[in-house]
Amino acid sequence: MDNQLALLTLCGSIIALLFVASRAQKVLRFPEGNDTMKKISASIHKGAMAYLRRQYKILIGFFAIMFVILFVMAALGLLTWFVPFAFVTGGFFSGLSGFIGMQIATRANARTAAACQKSLNKGLNVAFSAGSVMGFTVVGLGLLDISIWYLLLKLVFKLSIEDITSTMLTFGMGASSMALFARVGGGIYTKAADVGADLVGKVEAGIPEDDPRNPAVIADNVGDNVGDVAGMGADLYESYVGSILSACALGVIAFNKIESVDRVNAVVIPMVLAAVGVLASIIGSLLVKTGESTDQSTLLKALRRGTNTSAIIIAVVAFPLVWFILGKDFIGFYFAILGGLLAGVLIGFFTEYFTSDTYKPTQKLAGKSETGSATIIIGGLSLGMLSTAVPIIIIAVCVMAAYALSGGFIESTRGLYGIALAAVGMLSTLGITLATDAYGPIADNAGGIAEMAGLDAEVRRRTDALDSLGNTTAATGKGFAIGSAALTALALIASYVEKVQEVGGADIALDMSVMNPTVLVGIFIGACLPFVFAALTMDSVGRAAQSIVVEVRRQFKEIKGLMEGKADADYETCVDICTKASLHEMILPTLLAIITPVVTGLILGYNGVIGLLTGATATGFLMAIFMANSGGAWDNAKKYIEGGNHGGKGSECHKAAVVGDTVGDPFKDTSGPSINILIKLLSMVSIVFAALVVNYHIF
Amino acid sequence: MDNQLALLTLCGSIIALLFVASRAQKVLRFPEGNDTMKKISASIHKGAMAYLRRQYKILIGFFAIMFVILFVMAALGLLTWFVPFAFVTGGFFSGLSGFIGMQIATRANARTAAACQKSLNKGLNVAFSAGSVMGFTVVGLGLLDISIWYLLLKLVFKLSIEDITSTMLTFGMGASSMALFARVGGGIYTKAADVGADLVGKVEAGIPEDDPRNPAVIADNVGDNVGDVAGMGADLYESYVGSILSACALGVIAFNKIESVDRVNAVVIPMVLAAVGVLASIIGSLLVKTGESTDQSTLLKALRRGTNTSAIIIAVVAFPLVWFILGKDFIGFYFAILGGLLAGVLIGFFTEYFTSDTYKPTQKLAGKSETGSATIIIGGLSLGMLSTAVPIIIIAVCVMAAYALSGGFIESTRGLYGIALAAVGMLSTLGITLATDAYGPIADNAGGIAEMAGLDAEVRRRTDALDSLGNTTAATGKGFAIGSAALTALALIASYVEKVQEVGGADIALDMSVMNPTVLVGIFIGACLPFVFAALTMDSVGRAAQSIVVEVRRQFKEIKGLMEGKADADYETCVDICTKASLHEMILPTLLAIITPVVTGLILGYNGVIGLLTGATATGFLMAIFMANSGGAWDNAKKYIEGGNHGGKGSECHKAAVVGDTVGDPFKDTSGPSINILIKLLSMVSIVFAALVVNYHIF
Repeated sequence: MDNQLALLTLCGSIIALLFVASRAQKVLRFPEGNDTMKKISASIHKGAMAYLRRQYKILIGFFAIMFVILFVMAALGLLTWFVPFAFVTGGFFSGLSGFIGMQIATRANARTAAACQKSLNKGLNVAFSAGSVMGFTVVGLGLLDISIWYLLLKLVFKLSIEDITSTMLTFGMGASSMALFARVGGGIYTKAADVGADLVGKVEAGIPEDDPRNPAVIADNVGDNVGDVAGMGADLYESYVGSILSACALGVIAFNKIESVDRVNAVVIPMVLAAVGVLASIIGSLLVKTGESTDQSTLLKALRRGTNTSAIIIAVVAFPLVWFILGKDFIGFYFAILGGLLAGVLIGFFTEYFTSDTYKPTQKLAGKSETGSATIIIGGLSLGMLSTAVPIIIIAVCVMAAYALSGGFIESTRGLYGIALAAVGMLSTLGITLATDAYGPIADNAGGIAEMAGLDAEVRRRTDALDSLGNTTAATGKGFAIGSAALTALALIASYVEKVQEVGGADIALDMSVMNPTVLVGIFIGACLPFVFAALTMDSVGRAAQSIVVEVRRQFKEIKGLMEGKADADYETCVDICTKASLHEMILPTLLAIITPVVTGLILGYNGVIGLLTGATATGFLMAIFMANSGGAWDNAKKYIEGGNHGGKGSECHKAAVVGDTVGDPFKDTSGPSINILIKLLSMVSIVFAALVVNYHIF
Repeated sequence: MDNQLALLTLCGSIIALLFVASRAQKVLRFPEGNDTMKKISASIHKGAMAYLRRQYKILIGFFAIMFVILFVMAALGLLTWFVPFAFVTGGFFSGLSGFIGMQIATRANARTAAACQKSLNKGLNVAFSAGSVMGFTVVGLGLLDISIWYLLLKLVFKLSIEDITSTMLTFGMGASSMALFARVGGGIYTKAADVGADLVGKVEAGIPEDDPRNPAVIADNVGDNVGDVAGMGADLYESYVGSILSACALGVIAFNKIESVDRVNAVVIPMVLAAVGVLASIIGSLLVKTGESTDQSTLLKALRRGTNTSAIIIAVVAFPLVWFILGKDFIGFYFAILGGLLAGVLIGFFTEYFTSDTYKPTQKLAGKSETGSATIIIGGLSLGMLSTAVPIIIIAVCVMAAYALSGGFIESTRGLYGIALAAVGMLSTLGITLATDAYGPIADNAGGIAEMAGLDAEVRRRTDALDSLGNTTAATGKGFAIGSAALTALALIASYVEKVQEVGGADIALDMSVMNPTVLVGIFIGACLPFVFAALTMDSVGRAAQSIVVEVRRQFKEIKGLMEGKADADYETCVDICTKASLHEMILPTLLAIITPVVTGLILGYNGVIGLLTGATATGFLMAIFMANSGGAWDNAKKYIEGGNHGGKGSECHKAAVVGDTVGDPFKDTSGPSINILIKLLSMVSIVFAALVVNYHIF
């Protein structure tokens, strides 16, 4: 039965990719607007593509080096021969997801603006269709990669099911490395351009946002694409694939000692669940449409109709799925899946609660601007820190429930498999949740183009409505990304433990007690990593922004007539500086993530690595929430003031809030989201290098 | 032999207290200056005492309730009868340390200013003598409490050595609760007054710091005393006693199976080491004197002569101590002690490196003010986060070394005892390190009095030189406080594990593996606590400062002639508001620290508690360093600019740096230091409630 189910997964992936093609065509059928719009859109497209080309060039080097290292390790018998290839395909598909998503996104921005000239619904239609391209490309390519490898290893190479899952897990490392580069590089790009443009343009020169006189304005729009589209695409590809693969790997072990169930069934369940999720997402996304009201709650209802329908379909279909594939004795796993789905929704809701200006916390934060920027900064930091408590409790309950209901207290491996399935459940409707998330930067870009092309105020009002909605859905999307990262990371730690036992065999002295000093020291070092990582990425944004500031100042000074609108700014130099700076800055943090677990392992041994992964997951989860929510709340507090509260735009309160927002920029768009990838990459690297560490370590 | 050694400890404590008396007399022999100075000093003294009285009144209620709870638990057989009494004495002595220290501090401030009228050396002499009162009161009372209880339980009640150490450990909980209340309450007070005074006085009204026209100026000076003196005293009493007691408790277990050594010797070693430390500190502190140069490095050298001499004495004397008491087979413990001492010095050095404006990081941070407050905020946050890496590595190496050299890889309990001894080693010279630390706020107060009383500019220059030096020594002091907190917390977790085994006996199902979901979820919840705690305390400062802002604005508006210096401000109302607000705000965070481990234990069981403590220690350590260093760096970056860099005082850069400093205030003086206590209190509470949790828990 499992081969048919795997084929079903392959079908799911093909359906997703066909849907991508239909959505892409739909987007491209819309007109691009007038010549100015076409020209701006082309500049953004060109800048974004130039960035990606250079980024991929660097990454080809990285992947080539890693390929050689893994190849040598395979030659030494520390890995199977499939691993180097699996690693590369993981990276390739992750990069491809970002590439395709961005191709469409950079073509949809002007079209969205043009469509908004006609009606809000048309605008939503273009933007959301383009977002769907991103969403379904990620799930489609993810399932394609997984199902092809599965069928290949099983039917062609006839590997045992253990070897299949453990090989497949290693292409997760490829996807994670790629994702971290893309997220960090893109995150630095987008925030450096944004901060740099704002610091000189808005603050020093006093010109509005997206003003064509600002030399960094194109770079800013390119940044939205390379950061929020390509970066996010690679990121969620990694999350999606990581959660499925870790569940597959744990499924094999969970049903090791149970004769009534073929272990292969436990491996295909996460894949099939994902495939069903694709169909549910397609149905949901076809339901998204709106009228002419720019009222946020009406718009939100339009999107929620889609996401909720998808979630309900999954919640219903997963039951018979588990029942028939695993049997009624194991229906507890269904509740683990349901728990994951629910936890995702709840974390998303609380993310919105803490960061949306329709709720108390952000409104109160806006009020703190009355006593200046220091108080709004303190307020935002404490809001973010405090907001970690709720998701922690949700995840704690989800983990305990998934573990207990899956029978973890009878057989621990079943509990761990349950946790992994909860992560898959949470991400099963990724197709549509990502579509609602990825359309945001497109609407943002459309607004920029409307501004630069001097379109009607009504158009800008419509794109703003879409953009603002995008912020809300982004908050929900972040909830899913963070929640699933924590669950997947836990599942990956469990996979690492299994891997160590597998490669070490009887010689292994596994002592994962927190009173084992290597574990304890590992926890300390691991807990420190997200802090260091956040610091490095924030610094990178600062340095890159600084170089933009210098360039923009130079252009304002040297290009005569620029401020009067008589001469054109040299956008390309800014784009070029951002590209160079962000690509340069992305390397150190990512290498740190790859090297630390290996070095720690060589010194402290595998027990130390287990500690490291645990510590990094716990603090990483906290830091990701803290930074995302502080940043989101500052952003929306500023918007709340701009909406006419506390003196509105231009008031002292507004100035204070702008400081908060600027601090929040690298928080929420660079450091925070990168940490989600970091915690999984650490585990992935550890798994790939497990044999090395088991054989060579000091303590 | 052990009784003699315990008596030696008692002697050490008496010598310390006699030294306190001599220093106090010395301080009081100095003249208080003119009538204005006397009056200001008296107001500060009165405000501080009023605060303490009211704080102690609330705490008597708390201690009474806890006494009843512990008494009931003792009646139910969950605790021994000594525990409720031990708990109360721990709290009493901790409070007494703060009280005595503050009595002298509030009498030394005007005297320091008066002495500075004569010479810098005289000023240093008064301030440092008053600081010594604080330092030696803490160590004297700590050792008194420990040695009396030890002798009483051993000679009068004839308890077994296990029961003695485990009973004594519980008075650590009293000390820790008291310390947390004092630190949080004092920390909120001092920063609310400081921020409130600055926001209206400096920013809105444009009058200088410490200007007598500012109604919050006395509250600000009171705050230095209740926060930085009384709060710090209670805090370090707790650290000192906690490290010794956890070492004693682990000593019993470490030598359980070794016949050649009487276990009692392992118990007295930490006490004797501390007693030797007292003598070393006295010798060191007698060497502190300086000339007339206000040059920082000359002044620093004067203090360093004292601290270094003390450290060297301990390093030399500890060797024969271990050799003769434990025997040469166990000389490895000496190296654990030495490692702790060294780690303390190194962490102190790096704290200084990251926060002093004589080094690159803070100078660079000051440079970030060029692009405004947002960039200096981002820079400070990332500096603090990045700076966690070095202390983490130092502690990691220290833990591994102490564990390995003590023979932990042969017998794990010996390794844990070694870690505990490292903490004792780090704190052994607390008498003098605390003296160099506590003199800072006295010099700060003296500066305020000099300003308010309109003394000669030369006097202010001298007090400023002393104050500035105080910032450097405070950084070093913080290094010791944070480092010892981490080591002690680890030792306390080990003590908790032993306690669980002791009360649970054979029924216990100890599974401390990080793959046990209760441990894992415990780690998550524990890791979250420092974030929540930091958020709550920062919010408290914000709220309390807000009420001061309102009051100061009211006085400026309603008291006619105040701004012209013709009418007096109503200082007392501000003092009263600060007192009420901070006492009200201190309750929630502290109760959270006491209730969470018990509730977690009742739900997740003792394994969950072990996870909770581990998670809280790891993140707590990181957050404490992050917040202390970010705050310290902002403070000194502002001072660096005030020293004439980047445009100096009043420039745009300076304004940006003031924002950073204001954000840093609650970071470094409220939230950060409280977290050090938090992580130990969590363990202490867990130990006291161990029997309850072992008997009743859900998972």
